[in-house]
Amino acid sequence: MTLWGNRFTQPMDPLAWKMNSSLAFDRRLALQDVAGSIAWLSALLKAGVLTSDEAAQMISALQNIASEFETDGFVYLETDEDIHSAVERRLGELIGPLAGKLHTGRSRNDQVATDFRLWMMQTLPVLDKVIQDLQKCLVDLAEKNIHTIMPGYTHLQRAQPVTLAHWLLSFFWMLQRDRSILKDLHKRLAIMPLGSGAIAGTAFPIDRTALAEDLGFDSPAWNSIDAVSDRDFAAEYLFCCALTGVHISKLAENVVLFTTKEFGFFRLSDEYSTGSSLMPQKRNPDPFELARGKSGTLIGLLTGLMATLKGLPSTYDKDLQEDKMPVFQATDILLSVLPVLTGAMSKMFIDKVRMLASIDPGMMATDLADELVRNGIPFREAHALVGKAVKYAEGKSLALNELSSKDWDAIGISGIEIKEILDSGRSIERRNAIGGTAPQAVIEQIKKARKFC
Amino acid sequence: MTLWGNRFTQPMDPLAWKMNSSLAFDRRLALQDVAGSIAWLSALLKAGVLTSDEAAQMISALQNIASEFETDGFVYLETDEDIHSAVERRLGELIGPLAGKLHTGRSRNDQVATDFRLWMMQTLPVLDKVIQDLQKCLVDLAEKNIHTIMPGYTHLQRAQPVTLAHWLLSFFWMLQRDRSILKDLHKRLAIMPLGSGAIAGTAFPIDRTALAEDLGFDSPAWNSIDAVSDRDFAAEYLFCCALTGVHISKLAENVVLFTTKEFGFFRLSDEYSTGSSLMPQKRNPDPFELARGKSGTLIGLLTGLMATLKGLPSTYDKDLQEDKMPVFQATDILLSVLPVLTGAMSKMFIDKVRMLASIDPGMMATDLADELVRNGIPFREAHALVGKAVKYAEGKSLALNELSSKDWDAIGISGIEIKEILDSGRSIERRNAIGGTAPQAVIEQIKKARKFC
Amino acid sequence: MTLWGNRFTQPMDPLAWKMNSSLAFDRRLALQDVAGSIAWLSALLKAGVLTSDEAAQMISALQNIASEFETDGFVYLETDEDIHSAVERRLGELIGPLAGKLHTGRSRNDQVATDFRLWMMQTLPVLDKVIQDLQKCLVDLAEKNIHTIMPGYTHLQRAQPVTLAHWLLSFFWMLQRDRSILKDLHKRLAIMPLGSGAIAGTAFPIDRTALAEDLGFDSPAWNSIDAVSDRDFAAEYLFCCALTGVHISKLAENVVLFTTKEFGFFRLSDEYSTGSSLMPQKRNPDPFELARGKSGTLIGLLTGLMATLKGLPSTYDKDLQEDKMPVFQATDILLSVLPVLTGAMSKMFIDKVRMLASIDPGMMATDLADELVRNGIPFREAHALVGKAVKYAEGKSLALNELSSKDWDAIGISGIEIKEILDSGRSIERRNAIGGTAPQAVIEQIKKARKFC
Amino acid sequence: MTLWGNRFTQPMDPLAWKMNSSLAFDRRLALQDVAGSIAWLSALLKAGVLTSDEAAQMISALQNIASEFETDGFVYLETDEDIHSAVERRLGELIGPLAGKLHTGRSRNDQVATDFRLWMMQTLPVLDKVIQDLQKCLVDLAEKNIHTIMPGYTHLQRAQPVTLAHWLLSFFWMLQRDRSILKDLHKRLAIMPLGSGAIAGTAFPIDRTALAEDLGFDSPAWNSIDAVSDRDFAAEYLFCCALTGVHISKLAENVVLFTTKEFGFFRLSDEYSTGSSLMPQKRNPDPFELARGKSGTLIGLLTGLMATLKGLPSTYDKDLQEDKMPVFQATDILLSVLPVLTGAMSKMFIDKVRMLASIDPGMMATDLADELVRNGIPFREAHALVGKAVKYAEGKSLALNELSSKDWDAIGISGIEIKEILDSGRSIERRNAIGGTAPQAVIEQIKKARKFC
Repeated sequence: MTLWGNRFTQPMDPLAWKMNSSLAFDRRLALQDVAGSIAWLSALLKAGVLTSDEAAQMISALQNIASEFETDGFVYLETDEDIHSAVERRLGELIGPLAGKLHTGRSRNDQVATDFRLWMMQTLPVLDKVIQDLQKCLVDLAEKNIHTIMPGYTHLQRAQPVTLAHWLLSFFWMLQRDRSILKDLHKRLAIMPLGSGAIAGTAFPIDRTALAEDLGFDSPAWNSIDAVSDRDFAAEYLFCCALTGVHISKLAENVVLFTTKEFGFFRLSDEYSTGSSLMPQKRNPDPFELARGKSGTLIGLLTGLMATLKGLPSTYDKDLQEDKMPVFQATDILLSVLPVLTGAMSKMFIDKVRMLASIDPGMMATDLADELVRNGIPFREAHALVGKAVKYAEGKSLALNELSSKDWDAIGISGIEIKEILDSGRSIERRNAIGGTAPQAVIEQIKKARKFC
Repeated sequence: MTLWGNRFTQPMDPLAWKMNSSLAFDRRLALQDVAGSIAWLSALLKAGVLTSDEAAQMISALQNIASEFETDGFVYLETDEDIHSAVERRLGELIGPLAGKLHTGRSRNDQVATDFRLWMMQTLPVLDKVIQDLQKCLVDLAEKNIHTIMPGYTHLQRAQPVTLAHWLLSFFWMLQRDRSILKDLHKRLAIMPLGSGAIAGTAFPIDRTALAEDLGFDSPAWNSIDAVSDRDFAAEYLFCCALTGVHISKLAENVVLFTTKEFGFFRLSDEYSTGSSLMPQKRNPDPFELARGKSGTLIGLLTGLMATLKGLPSTYDKDLQEDKMPVFQATDILLSVLPVLTGAMSKMFIDKVRMLASIDPGMMATDLADELVRNGIPFREAHALVGKAVKYAEGKSLALNELSSKDWDAIGISGIEIKEILDSGRSIERRNAIGGTAPQAVIEQIKKARKFC
Repeated sequence: MTLWGNRFTQPMDPLAWKMNSSLAFDRRLALQDVAGSIAWLSALLKAGVLTSDEAAQMISALQNIASEFETDGFVYLETDEDIHSAVERRLGELIGPLAGKLHTGRSRNDQVATDFRLWMMQTLPVLDKVIQDLQKCLVDLAEKNIHTIMPGYTHLQRAQPVTLAHWLLSFFWMLQRDRSILKDLHKRLAIMPLGSGAIAGTAFPIDRTALAEDLGFDSPAWNSIDAVSDRDFAAEYLFCCALTGVHISKLAENVVLFTTKEFGFFRLSDEYSTGSSLMPQKRNPDPFELARGKSGTLIGLLTGLMATLKGLPSTYDKDLQEDKMPVFQATDILLSVLPVLTGAMSKMFIDKVRMLASIDPGMMATDLADELVRNGIPFREAHALVGKAVKYAEGKSLALNELSSKDWDAIGISGIEIKEILDSGRSIERRNAIGGTAPQAVIEQIKKARKFC
Repeated sequence: MTLWGNRFTQPMDPLAWKMNSSLAFDRRLALQDVAGSIAWLSALLKAGVLTSDEAAQMISALQNIASEFETDGFVYLETDEDIHSAVERRLGELIGPLAGKLHTGRSRNDQVATDFRLWMMQTLPVLDKVIQDLQKCLVDLAEKNIHTIMPGYTHLQRAQPVTLAHWLLSFFWMLQRDRSILKDLHKRLAIMPLGSGAIAGTAFPIDRTALAEDLGFDSPAWNSIDAVSDRDFAAEYLFCCALTGVHISKLAENVVLFTTKEFGFFRLSDEYSTGSSLMPQKRNPDPFELARGKSGTLIGLLTGLMATLKGLPSTYDKDLQEDKMPVFQATDILLSVLPVLTGAMSKMFIDKVRMLASIDPGMMATDLADELVRNGIPFREAHALVGKAVKYAEGKSLALNELSSKDWDAIGISGIEIKEILDSGRSIERRNAIGGTAPQAVIEQIKKARKFC
């Protein structure tokens, strides 16, 4: 059933119909569509457009339809153009011509925008929750590893020792930003289009403020032209999904690295590993690779919608129908990936011995330079002296801690407790300003983090 | 069924399994997978790895499986990890342990890359055909409109008169480039990965050249490491789909414009129009808007895969599993959109009267300047003189052809057959060099175009 | 000068040096770099790492360097690797070896992240201002056009009459969302990396909370690993720029359309029009086309950075150096485009007569259906009846308001004050719920809008 | 100087002028612009539009202008709108009003498209050369490492031994595809727009076929509407640059990994390493990280242009001016990055001992399964048996080659020369089908590769 055929003489071409139909994906908005319709009927009742009897009969039937959706009992027809048409068609089956009053003063333009926003308003906390779950997992792991030492990398070269807790928490803050962006989105999302009609507003005396409240929106949209075509919330949502994807990808890239034989810091449990069809010995970190790969897809979903939106003038154009698929796809990706990563992280084996063994004395070179600074040498000069020591040691194929005091004299460094300075544990303890890797600072960091999860 | 579980103690986590499974989309490669396996068995037979009996039995069973796929009779199980596993599992059901020889000397890495390439090799002509159909439609329409005059626009401002045929053919050449790119892709696509194993090549004496020929490839891949991870063909394919999308979007944007009340050049037939649920008078060009919108999605599909590929080291990583969905989506979009546009273009009403009426005399200003040039005036000076005339006419609220000879004298233009120069038909006829809009040139252009469709 | 050469034997390859150097673009951070250094020296002083004399001497010299930057008197050398190196080199020229203490306890990793954030914190209000200027221009124009009637379009087909004020304000709200997103970004931006060192934090007792306050940050970053590599603020900024670009593109697309001969609603002033080198009569809306084109570029800048970020593990990698160019480019685009659009919009001629003349009676079809609803007919039936009327009128080549009462009887519509219903002014007045196009609602809308500009 | 002002009353707004001017980047087309003009004048001469004297005088002056460009002696003025205007202005300074004949029958629309294509036609071989240089470097290195054994990775897990030559050559083929795509582009690029005028073709009897030949094009464009707005070549070029970027990124990612302490396969020479401003011991692979990062930027450049093109109707719109910057940026990136990578690869130290030491016996598990297959066991069963062996060995914390014959009996594997099977050199030799990693196959591969570089 279409809601518009009467001015036409010929039916739509079947291929064009198929391309035009959005039921394949907008059926996902079924419950929101019914909820929006029920609220709309109440508003029409208050506006005197419907009688109490009419409204009651229609609302009751819509509630039945909602039940049908919830129990998968709703039967879609080939001829349903979209979810709105399907609902109105079904309503007609249930209550006859009265169903024809459902669309009074309303357009599919404001209706679908309302449905979509409602859906996203309900999805935000679900998404927030799976992100938060991963955060919790990271903080839990961090708490157990405040004193676990691992190499910190920059440029993927060993840089300075850090604690595993500190490393884990670095992802916590990335995810916290994602949640923060999603939260900020809410205020732009919770603006109700309903009552904007096709473009010009509704001609019935609807109390849109009350209607917005009824549906859980913060307020009605202030401009009907903008309201029916605004898909910024979808773009912003996709941006946040893509950014979350970037963070997931970073975590995944690190785990893939750290589960290699070469790094050997982590080992995934069997539940989160896969094997090879050819090579019997393989243990592959597939979930993390898929997470990393899907984050590329998420960037594409954002780009695609942006390119579509950019190509339009203002007001409603049918191109906007391309808004829902990317949002649903992005949501499904994150809701599928995040819990798996949480599970995999919580169950992986951490090889603390291997981590500690990967600290080489050169990683404390900065500590040495810092100590020279404490002895009054300008840092730039200290850096040069230690650089000289590194070159000297390399020339002798020695580690820094294997140089003799004669060597140190030759380099021109003296008066330093070399051994203590080159101790990784002490190195970590020294970095105890806010945000540093010292256990004391990490404990403060965890306290702060716990407030968010 | 997985092809790899034996070294593990615990089964995969159900959510991880679900995320990992690719059956939802790689089942689309079912027939290619079976064809690849049959060819592989023949190669194993020639290599002496299988006996004739074994090969015959296995191939016969695989042919049965192919029939099951073709008749939708194949039953997938929840436990099938991917299409390869599903086929091998089914083969086992049909012929017992002998099925275990199917995977000899082969990895899913080279297998899936082969399947995917085979699929694309079979899809290229299908895609080429629907593009060609639209080209044919455009040339047919052009042939009927060699003398139909319409305004040519630059900056969406009326610029110079052109023929409708010329305008229609401009899209022909865009589509011709798309076909040309797709054709060029074939040589990079028809390189066979099979026999590359997981990464290092196969350890059985397979004649890969013969195998490639058997499967319709130009040649085997020269490097097994590259072969299992090369998805450039997918990126190139998506680029071409996105570029075709850009062209479709341009056509659609033009049709949307030309079907407005304000332009009024085209009117879509009922079969390709939709109405409004609210506004009974509306006749909307939905198919063209959807085509335009989906071209944004196509750009996103390209971007997404590029971002995924960019994030990887060489050799196979599981991220590559994200290659198929965008390719299938892009294909489905074009195979759905192009025939609809072809149908809509072929059935739309062209308002020649309205087009001609939209030619205003100012559009022949260049002709006037050109004529002055023929009289020996440098073009820059001629341009200035005509510019002066335009300003003069605007000041008097007259069209150029309404100026009197006194006016022309005042402007400083004389000795010109103004009326003839300002005739749109003559303007068009003058542009008869190759590629110009003159009917004579357009006839040549159509001859050239007909060679491609 | 580099800050690191001592452990190496050979100098860098010249081409590699050139590729590595970031001075070409990070010189834009010169003042922020100096400001960051001055604050850092104060913090070192408080931490007891510098004497008062040392700090005073260094700070004074840095202030001189700032003056050099401000007066374009700073001389860069070929050998300056980046802005930090250039400043430290210059400091050495001014005060000798003491300059070597500038880098104490600090890394370029935390330094450049701090500089970049400072720069963006200072840029946000500048960007906000040019967006706000365009908003003001729109509201000013709207105030003058509360009763100006124009056709409202959906699917680019004439839909319902709206007021020009309402149309103009639709862009106001888009821009308001952009400003809202930029404002939300601030809280994630104003987190100070300084004191994070290269990755592990600083080993000197810096009071980072005081330091953050000193530099205008809300707080220090809680995790040094995250702090040195977090470029989410750049991605979020680029997203907002791209979204602003989408809005600008929509406005531009509309203006390009409305300045065509076919629409003829607007006419750009000479100051914002360009001509053609060939066609003397042309008046092209180049500024709007460029704005529209550049919005594509903005999407690319976002995508590019996202793809770069997605390809990295956590912690600092040199790839992050690619963060600044897109941010600077995006900023330059918006700061150049927005004031031009504001100027062009404020000076363009609005053809109210043409707008009103473009309202055709069919655009009030919804009003007719609504009126039938008021008479008790279900909307779906009313829609069908009016659809029938539209088809009937088209068959007779009449406009809706040209049908006779006999015609209306034949159609089955009666008891309606057709003439009044088909009046565009009345149509507009009926849509007076919040957000509707009625003058009364628009006046409320303007009041609301004025609060933001 | 503009080429169009005469119909306007007021000059352009200064900010709009600045935004509109393209001289900042299209000056890069100076020599192509002059060459195009010289050829155009010859064509005008043949067409009888110019006298021999006029043509000679103009061409001579243009040659002088070309010299000025080549010697950086050309002086641009603030008032030059673009390169075409600058050249025509300068020509006027040199030869007076005769310069006004330069633009006869030509528009900037066809002129700039011609210039841009000429520039790209000249750039393709330059780009091809730097890619080829890297290929040569890879093949040279491969030739020296036909017997160098390294671990081959899939999922970044050790998979099977391969030769370093084979690994190096995998990048050769990626780059070969890039060159192949660039080469294919040429046929779509070498289509001449000149003579298409602004949109409708030229009204002078220009022999466009001869003109095309004169300028080195394959043929004139067949459709003037398409010719002035076709930027597909730019999109295709950017796609190829982005794909080359993906390949560079893969190489870079691998080198970054292989230069870590953990892998330790490569060590960059000092000329291609950088240090840290803070950590004196650091040796960072900056050139490779920058290459990797810039490949994200390249994806963005492609996306940006695609989004811009997608938003346009057909024919020339000013948005197309956004075509040049991304093409120039992409070219500069590749021309800067590729030679540095070539230099760095050719000078890096390869640690063959470390590579060999990283082969662990489990990597020959597939060889073991293959051998069982040779003994008649179906591969799936063989895979299971070896999987069992792997688990068994892990349980005993032994490597596969440390299992005793008793262990093998317990597992159920017998009759195999375990030691020989687990030898990495023999494993490699077995993979000697075309494209395999065996030295013999690699020698064939190198022969094939040498044909291309």
